[in-house]
Amino acid sequence: MSAAPQPSAFSERLASIGARVESALDRLLTPAPLADEIVRPKRLLDAMRHAALGGGKRLRPFLTIETAAMLGWPEAKAERAACAIEFVHCYSLVHDDLPAMDDDDLRRGRPTVHKAFDEATAILAGDALLTLAFDVMADEPTHPDASVRARLVLGLARASGLGGMAGGQMLDLDAEREAGALPRAGIERLQAMKTGALLRYAVEAGAILAGAAPGERAALVDYGLALGAAFQIADDILDAEGDAQALGKKAGKDAGRNKGTLVGALGLDGAKRARDELVVRALDALKPFGARANTLSEAARFTAARAH
Amino acid sequence: MSAAPQPSAFSERLASIGARVESALDRLLTPAPLADEIVRPKRLLDAMRHAALGGGKRLRPFLTIETAAMLGWPEAKAERAACAIEFVHCYSLVHDDLPAMDDDDLRRGRPTVHKAFDEATAILAGDALLTLAFDVMADEPTHPDASVRARLVLGLARASGLGGMAGGQMLDLDAEREAGALPRAGIERLQAMKTGALLRYAVEAGAILAGAAPGERAALVDYGLALGAAFQIADDILDAEGDAQALGKKAGKDAGRNKGTLVGALGLDGAKRARDELVVRALDALKPFGARANTLSEAARFTAARAH
Repeated sequence: MSAAPQPSAFSERLASIGARVESALDRLLTPAPLADEIVRPKRLLDAMRHAALGGGKRLRPFLTIETAAMLGWPEAKAERAACAIEFVHCYSLVHDDLPAMDDDDLRRGRPTVHKAFDEATAILAGDALLTLAFDVMADEPTHPDASVRARLVLGLARASGLGGMAGGQMLDLDAEREAGALPRAGIERLQAMKTGALLRYAVEAGAILAGAAPGERAALVDYGLALGAAFQIADDILDAEGDAQALGKKAGKDAGRNKGTLVGALGLDGAKRARDELVVRALDALKPFGARANTLSEAARFTAARAH
Repeated sequence: MSAAPQPSAFSERLASIGARVESALDRLLTPAPLADEIVRPKRLLDAMRHAALGGGKRLRPFLTIETAAMLGWPEAKAERAACAIEFVHCYSLVHDDLPAMDDDDLRRGRPTVHKAFDEATAILAGDALLTLAFDVMADEPTHPDASVRARLVLGLARASGLGGMAGGQMLDLDAEREAGALPRAGIERLQAMKTGALLRYAVEAGAILAGAAPGERAALVDYGLALGAAFQIADDILDAEGDAQALGKKAGKDAGRNKGTLVGALGLDGAKRARDELVVRALDALKPFGARANTLSEAARFTAARAH
């Protein structure tokens, strides 16, 4: 009989930031009563709350808050930008789950938004979460300097749009439609856009908030790129190994659909080696920060060990 | 035999700004070759171009550019903000046309995006257009002052999200689901959010760009609110009168679906009176600007006379 594993300092920190983010997301999705005369349709707000609250490790907000904190920017003042990024992540899950996309009924063990509500409401809830992300990012409480807020908005849009997440999802759908497997470079490009861009940006946003010097920011972008790539390979490995319960969705699904994964291109062992190399790259990028980067180093190891 | 009507100075101006906007939209949807290494998936870009180019009067960009011009801000420097607003309008049409929403096959006489491509691509094209709107708005060429750009982003998000356009679409879907007609106040609220908010903001954005004084900005917001409401009543009247060809979509459709329209609530004559009152309100709001506002006055009359 093995003893229950002790929670590490890292996982406690992750859980504590997660709880802080959860409550900030909740506040941002709770209209102040009588604060203004704007009507916020209840069904749409309920669907947005269903999509954004009550689940997930909040890895992206964690990266934003930890990166900013490492550079001396207080956690509480990084919360709003972190939540804006999480809203973009949540919108992408709602739209990816739609019948016309991945057609998933469950997400983190709960009904997806189009199942809990309906398809039209899910489309609108995704749209409204994406829009809210920019609302939150551009508003003054996010950062006192408007040029910082404008840069945050721009970076978020670039990471999320045609040249980032939405484009990556398109490449993924293209790959499904076409016969034959994608070459490794094609898969890496797809993944760098679909999941990597927003993870990389979550790190970069922390650097922008804290006013990092260009060299620091570049190092952190390298870290974010490697971490984002490791995240996706870890997800592919998790899927290939079929841990259905932990995933909360049907395991083996991506492979079954001939989606391009690095496990398919490199084999399971090859994918694990590629993942480990990415972790080394991520840790190397953090070297200039020394011991201050301990939590971010742990985050890279954590991300590689477990994607969800 | 009557002579062909002479084009008015206003309609020439509208067409000329429309052509200028069309070419700016085209440029914003044409990636500079080799300018960077970002991949922009062709199918997604094609779908975005299908959605955004080759159609429409460009009324929203016209309002932004004319409002800014009236206040002394050059047309060419208002173009990007105007295009950002048009991208939001185009995204909303793509998503509203989806099978789960209004299920329309035609838009301005051409196949809708999900017909010309497929449903998943249409969802992503809408998402990517919405995201691009914030990209364009936040980037430096839009305005040299970052605090102006941040205000433009915030205003666009507020006009488009839960408390604006997306919320209005939700109220519209709610009204369809429920038996019985909405009361007049409910219809007005729905329309103010669904179509009014973005039209009002198109005017306000011109004022923000040009650095209007608070009083000027408030007067222009009043104008935009009245114009936005007049636009929607005119649309309802056009629909009720069944000018199928001019609309390029099935006439009488909204009424047939028991959607709340002011023609339903007030009758055709009552709706026309309400529309005319709104035009008077719009013109009154422009009084402080004297003859400088002639084009915006014409725009209000034009909007009321014909919505599309």
